[in-house]
Amino acid sequence: MAASEAKNVGILAMDIYFPPTCVLQEELEIHDGVSKGKYTIGLGQDSMAFCTEVEDVISMSLTVVKSLLKNYNIDPKCIGRLEVGSETVIDKSKSIKTWLMQIFEECGNTDIEGVDSSNACYGGTAALFNCVNWVESNSWDGRYGLVVCTDSAVYAEGPARPTGGAAAIAMLIGPNAPISFESKYRGSHMAHAYDFYKPNLASEYPVVDGKLSQTCYLMALDSCYNVFCKKYEKHEGKQFSIFDADYVVFHSPYNKLVQKSFARLYYNDFLRNCSTVDEESKEKLAPYTGLSSEESYQNRDLEKASQQVAKSLYESKVQPTTLIPKQVGNMYTASLYAAFASVIHNRHETLAGQRIVMFSYGSGLTSTMFSFKINEGQHPFSLLNIANILDISKKLESRHVVPPKEFIEALKLMEHRYGAKDFVTSQDTSLLPAGTYFLTHVDSMYRRFYAVKGDGVSNAVSNGH
Amino acid sequence: MAASEAKNVGILAMDIYFPPTCVLQEELEIHDGVSKGKYTIGLGQDSMAFCTEVEDVISMSLTVVKSLLKNYNIDPKCIGRLEVGSETVIDKSKSIKTWLMQIFEECGNTDIEGVDSSNACYGGTAALFNCVNWVESNSWDGRYGLVVCTDSAVYAEGPARPTGGAAAIAMLIGPNAPISFESKYRGSHMAHAYDFYKPNLASEYPVVDGKLSQTCYLMALDSCYNVFCKKYEKHEGKQFSIFDADYVVFHSPYNKLVQKSFARLYYNDFLRNCSTVDEESKEKLAPYTGLSSEESYQNRDLEKASQQVAKSLYESKVQPTTLIPKQVGNMYTASLYAAFASVIHNRHETLAGQRIVMFSYGSGLTSTMFSFKINEGQHPFSLLNIANILDISKKLESRHVVPPKEFIEALKLMEHRYGAKDFVTSQDTSLLPAGTYFLTHVDSMYRRFYAVKGDGVSNAVSNGH
Repeated sequence: MAASEAKNVGILAMDIYFPPTCVLQEELEIHDGVSKGKYTIGLGQDSMAFCTEVEDVISMSLTVVKSLLKNYNIDPKCIGRLEVGSETVIDKSKSIKTWLMQIFEECGNTDIEGVDSSNACYGGTAALFNCVNWVESNSWDGRYGLVVCTDSAVYAEGPARPTGGAAAIAMLIGPNAPISFESKYRGSHMAHAYDFYKPNLASEYPVVDGKLSQTCYLMALDSCYNVFCKKYEKHEGKQFSIFDADYVVFHSPYNKLVQKSFARLYYNDFLRNCSTVDEESKEKLAPYTGLSSEESYQNRDLEKASQQVAKSLYESKVQPTTLIPKQVGNMYTASLYAAFASVIHNRHETLAGQRIVMFSYGSGLTSTMFSFKINEGQHPFSLLNIANILDISKKLESRHVVPPKEFIEALKLMEHRYGAKDFVTSQDTSLLPAGTYFLTHVDSMYRRFYAVKGDGVSNAVSNGH
Repeated sequence: MAASEAKNVGILAMDIYFPPTCVLQEELEIHDGVSKGKYTIGLGQDSMAFCTEVEDVISMSLTVVKSLLKNYNIDPKCIGRLEVGSETVIDKSKSIKTWLMQIFEECGNTDIEGVDSSNACYGGTAALFNCVNWVESNSWDGRYGLVVCTDSAVYAEGPARPTGGAAAIAMLIGPNAPISFESKYRGSHMAHAYDFYKPNLASEYPVVDGKLSQTCYLMALDSCYNVFCKKYEKHEGKQFSIFDADYVVFHSPYNKLVQKSFARLYYNDFLRNCSTVDEESKEKLAPYTGLSSEESYQNRDLEKASQQVAKSLYESKVQPTTLIPKQVGNMYTASLYAAFASVIHNRHETLAGQRIVMFSYGSGLTSTMFSFKINEGQHPFSLLNIANILDISKKLESRHVVPPKEFIEALKLMEHRYGAKDFVTSQDTSLLPAGTYFLTHVDSMYRRFYAVKGDGVSNAVSNGH
């Protein structure tokens, strides 16, 4: 039997949800007593979303799935696969996907493949690849795939705390997509590392080696770019350089690393002797030709010089991707796709025919560079409609900025509640938009109960069985 | 671009590892002071493997991957995708897959897609589907996929404790396989349930509602069988009954549930009025026609009657699949594939041309019924060679039976060590076969160090970066 006939498989539709509560990085600098600019310029971040005690990764994913189905008018019966990427563990056995099944059980659709994929911030990319492969496989039954990335990034008191964030993204997968995969250009780098991990099972906070994590990220980037270029060159018979990408979208723990990463790709092009690197750049980067790759990751002068020569390209190819990550923070599995949503928001009118290169990274470590080809699409799966439904400006503008003190208090309460049972939340939904799911209580058997903020009408979600 | 040209994609090769230490269920009955036969007949279990403090799901998966590559003479560079299914959480962010990357990094292969799939005992099936879909997708690069199922099932003191077990299974995936998928016959049932889950993050033990879990399992079985039969009938234009399966392999938490499950399928065939159900069975099952499906799950008389009429079919179609699950116990994600390995062990000489129906179940809940078509295969990927390499009889016979007291002491030590840092294991490898990986110590940063039991030579595995 021939494999699936599906062509141009990729992302048909997207929706995003992030909590309506955020803290400003400049206010956090004052609160933490650090030097001015440490978070805003040093990390490159503007503000950070966080879940209060009524929201979590399950509620956010319920909210965004319901929202996508409603906004694009998709019958839940038309979903044949549902995959979740997350690294925020609420239960070590029961997948987040099973909570989402409540939405589909309501209309009698329980024949939906897929579970949760996990490795740090990479799980969403794994889920996306799995869904796309399913559509291209013999097992495809003609229905849509649905990928959900949901995470809440929180850190213990200390230098990593301002690199948190929270969001959930849903992506509808199928053939004839406006955002389709160039499947043959794909480079992965997977290795054993302890740069960021969560071995303390009783705590929500990770163990982080910030410096190691940055080096691992850049090494993985180099390795993925190398494989990506080789595969491109094998298929296209010509050299690849960053000029062949209209936009480059990076997983964004904080914006500064994205700036460094793009400069690193430019340095790679220089080393590979791409004809696209101009004379001025060659001159400025020449002193660093002899560095070992290990040395090159630590060399501050190289970092500065490469960022300087790549600056104008960064402005055109990367800057438009940074809006949501800078405003919402690190969303772990959702970060890369929030950056991608930013470029759709900023550039949807001119994206058709363009190539977007994506770099996904998850500590531990797993990473892949891959490529999207964009076309206009057809309503409701058009770039314009996706941009309208994402509605980024309004979602960002309608947020509530809370003082750092309230943010810290929220984290303290969550520390106490992490892995706990037998408690009732405040059920305070005053800041949540209508249609948002929220946690009402956790019973003595650790079972979690959610409700939906209605338009005045209470709309409880029943517990399964 | 047309999708992958790969045909008859499926399992090319298998290997299995389970700990060399086990406890006898009849001795556990005496130790626990329960009635004779409660575990051996009531649960249908013979013995139970368990990890001592020198083994865990990471070491077992390292052992089985290394063993598969060696036994089938596979160059690690030929692996293009590696997926792990597990519900035993040692780290909430870093995937087990990244530990396994050590084996591939050694020979310079880091371009390997895939991460961990998780939902209770179903993660291995998700990983298997993902790998097969990859081979059938546009992204396939011609290399093999590798699926690893690894779990250690342990329970708090009480009635669930004798339903533990431990094992790791590795499966090589590619085209022209002796064990290939009948991709169009597949029925899934996914729903939100709290039958078995792990919300207490600081403990390795699950929260289990044994009665609910059994009902959820049987309901999921009914639903999957219903969808499976409908899809078969749509494609084949004729009714499906269990007579169309040469063997039926069930996820096996304990053997008694497998007996009930097969009887349940027979009862389904009776209700669907399959011509294959004989007159005697129709007569014996007639009194239960009027039961609601809810009532039917609780009715002991129906359970007995259906088991009685299905008994001879059970002997031929299911009994050969039960060897390893009865001897090793519940291996969670590995259980279904250990049952499948049992039928290869018992029947490899006569399997060619036959159909094997598989039922995968993970609490929470996710479940799928799917189907394999078997052919002889070609060396080294032949049924005979797979059976020889699995070497089940020798592995079972060479185990060390330990008294229940030692098993309980091992569990106590593991409770203490779960999620802990800064400890050294006994490094006692006297019972481990050569080539087995074992845990040597966990440092103050929770980093885990493993070594391989050599033939006299110490062979430490270095820590990543």
